[in-house]
Amino acid sequence: MSKQNKLTIGLFGFGVVGEGLYKVLQQTPSLNANLKKVCIKHADKERNAPAALFTTDKNDILNDAEINVVVEVIDDADAAFEIITTAFKNGKAVVSANKKTIAEHLPEFLKIQQETGLPFLYESAACASIPVIRNLEEYYDNDLLHSIKAIVNGSTNYILTKIFEENLEFNVALKQAQDLGFAESNPKLDVEGFDAANKWTFLLTHAYGIVEATENILFNGIQNIQLSDAKVAKEKGYEVKLVAQAKKLSNGKVAALVLPQFVSKENPLALVKNEYNGVVIESGFADEQFFYGKGAGSFPTASAVLSDISALRYDYRYEYKKLYHHQPFGLSNDYYLSVFVSAASWNNIPIDDFEWIDESYAAKNRCYITGVIHYSKLKDDNWWKHNGISLILDANAVIEPESLEAIRPEKAITFLEQVL
Amino acid sequence: MSKQNKLTIGLFGFGVVGEGLYKVLQQTPSLNANLKKVCIKHADKERNAPAALFTTDKNDILNDAEINVVVEVIDDADAAFEIITTAFKNGKAVVSANKKTIAEHLPEFLKIQQETGLPFLYESAACASIPVIRNLEEYYDNDLLHSIKAIVNGSTNYILTKIFEENLEFNVALKQAQDLGFAESNPKLDVEGFDAANKWTFLLTHAYGIVEATENILFNGIQNIQLSDAKVAKEKGYEVKLVAQAKKLSNGKVAALVLPQFVSKENPLALVKNEYNGVVIESGFADEQFFYGKGAGSFPTASAVLSDISALRYDYRYEYKKLYHHQPFGLSNDYYLSVFVSAASWNNIPIDDFEWIDESYAAKNRCYITGVIHYSKLKDDNWWKHNGISLILDANAVIEPESLEAIRPEKAITFLEQVL
Repeated sequence: MSKQNKLTIGLFGFGVVGEGLYKVLQQTPSLNANLKKVCIKHADKERNAPAALFTTDKNDILNDAEINVVVEVIDDADAAFEIITTAFKNGKAVVSANKKTIAEHLPEFLKIQQETGLPFLYESAACASIPVIRNLEEYYDNDLLHSIKAIVNGSTNYILTKIFEENLEFNVALKQAQDLGFAESNPKLDVEGFDAANKWTFLLTHAYGIVEATENILFNGIQNIQLSDAKVAKEKGYEVKLVAQAKKLSNGKVAALVLPQFVSKENPLALVKNEYNGVVIESGFADEQFFYGKGAGSFPTASAVLSDISALRYDYRYEYKKLYHHQPFGLSNDYYLSVFVSAASWNNIPIDDFEWIDESYAAKNRCYITGVIHYSKLKDDNWWKHNGISLILDANAVIEPESLEAIRPEKAITFLEQVL
Repeated sequence: MSKQNKLTIGLFGFGVVGEGLYKVLQQTPSLNANLKKVCIKHADKERNAPAALFTTDKNDILNDAEINVVVEVIDDADAAFEIITTAFKNGKAVVSANKKTIAEHLPEFLKIQQETGLPFLYESAACASIPVIRNLEEYYDNDLLHSIKAIVNGSTNYILTKIFEENLEFNVALKQAQDLGFAESNPKLDVEGFDAANKWTFLLTHAYGIVEATENILFNGIQNIQLSDAKVAKEKGYEVKLVAQAKKLSNGKVAALVLPQFVSKENPLALVKNEYNGVVIESGFADEQFFYGKGAGSFPTASAVLSDISALRYDYRYEYKKLYHHQPFGLSNDYYLSVFVSAASWNNIPIDDFEWIDESYAAKNRCYITGVIHYSKLKDDNWWKHNGISLILDANAVIEPESLEAIRPEKAITFLEQVL
């Protein structure tokens, strides 16, 4: 059988992940990987590594024929795209932790991988220390994957945990998370769901062969979650999590969402606290699997990058089986969602868009309803992202069209009747 | 980069796992693996597969030069050893689900792998659908792995769950598990801890480079766990699980145990119910990781076998990094354990063996103590496995010698003083 490849690595980026990787590589001599050069932006910063290792000229790596692996862990998504594509053109395998770049350019990256046959690995880009991509690649084929539900953003999970456990309002919890380094100083990407949706974009490719732009996935963050929502959740025996999910419907299409959701105490995702991530996979063969671990941070991310580097010694590459070896699944636009919506005033909720209302509650500062609404009513409008409205999916949110009538309340209760 | 290997498979065994694998392979056309022949023991049994696939002559597989992968999922540990070694001699890669054979013959298998360079994969032999071996191989190097705690036997976990949730005595719960197929008709291997200890034997090799015979690991099953023990555990806020664990001590040696243990509700292992398995890994880089899934059964085991077959296309092989690339860790015999011991009578507990007693309790039919005892007092004797004595580790059981004095109770309380 074939020998292992000797790896000579060029690294882009020496921030928390890059420096973490440098340290991890030093403590992993058995890997026999040589870190030849590190490209950085600011030559004048002090670094905990020999000066000879560094360059500010990307071509010192990209044009070095001895370097056969480019590892890219920089912040700038556009520069990362440039580096990755040039590395491929120059015949190098690429390992990236850059979820935004991958999400935005997945079609190009798929094309380049097909054309060049070069490996492009990015386990660290989603859930860091949890081997979710490798697991989706290796374990599930064809129509075996019933659903995948995950907490993929540690910052928002940290904030939600604080809101829940310490009864903090969102802004107070966010401030704490920022002070502790669990949320960026500009938290928009995390807090408004962009980061989670980006990760979900390419996890959907590995799970179901779906290649869609992030904006085609229905997503939101936790910016409008109220402490009062958390109280309602607790009364119902739930927690609130920002859940990325995909579920295969009976027509073969996939419902994919990244939204806050009520999670029951029995759901393994309820175990995922603070900055941790978690993934629940339901399949025909392995039944329920759950993976839990740190989803970000220097060493967890670096150790995931390392596992990709390690896999390159065996010419491991993603196969995108559901995309290339099967009829890929498409996203469904035709299903219903059971939701909780809270707002400062009824006026901000388009009650007529709902199929029916199950509950309504009003108090001085906040009112809420629970009810069922068609997916497209949310997709085609965005009232539920504005005016401080908080939309949270019910624990079992997705309702297939053919199941709707069976659960429709016998006596149609109008909204006004309920409020009165 | 190199092409994928074309795999032609010879399968030994067509029981629940073998037939499961056959079905999984049929539903996984993208693997492009050809199942050429299946060797079975009883030619006359009806099989859900074409008759031409089967043979009763093992040489039809072992001497077929076209077959480059032997998959072995038979019950008979000795026959499995014969098949595996012959397959290696004939130049074939081997995938096995046979934990007993692997545990008993690991030194030989290590030697053969080194001599032949052929891959020997057995992810399915421990925790089935949980990729624990792959994870230990890929993520942890050198001294990064602080501890690993796992529930590796589904039958005993099912029984413990029933004892706990339905207040059943052990024998009633065992009977239910047998009726439902979650325990063998001869449950000794599972119930008395042999199966868990076997799995732990080779997981220790991947985790810490330790190669020891199963009998050198301190282990027991759950055969003596009383419903009254469960009640005590509940009062203390614990559950009881059969926990396989390994922890690196400060002197570099490893404490390895497979024993019933109190598990707090905050421990992810408390989430592992019924026939599921779970693994908690604590490491310097990834912090805490938790994996949860079905540890046995036709399809979960078959899907793990499949992931091994899939990996062979890339010449993947275990590297046993801790064994070959580092000074391997040894098992420690010098540490203390905080334990709970219940018995029908004090007479059966050698109180003098304990460093001290923390609690004692006596009622009409059952008494118990909690206290601290040196590992060797348990290793060198077996009073704690007999006379219906139930020994359960405390939630944080392992005490390093240098920590003992710091936690020794200030005022020495003798056992008799406590009972009186």
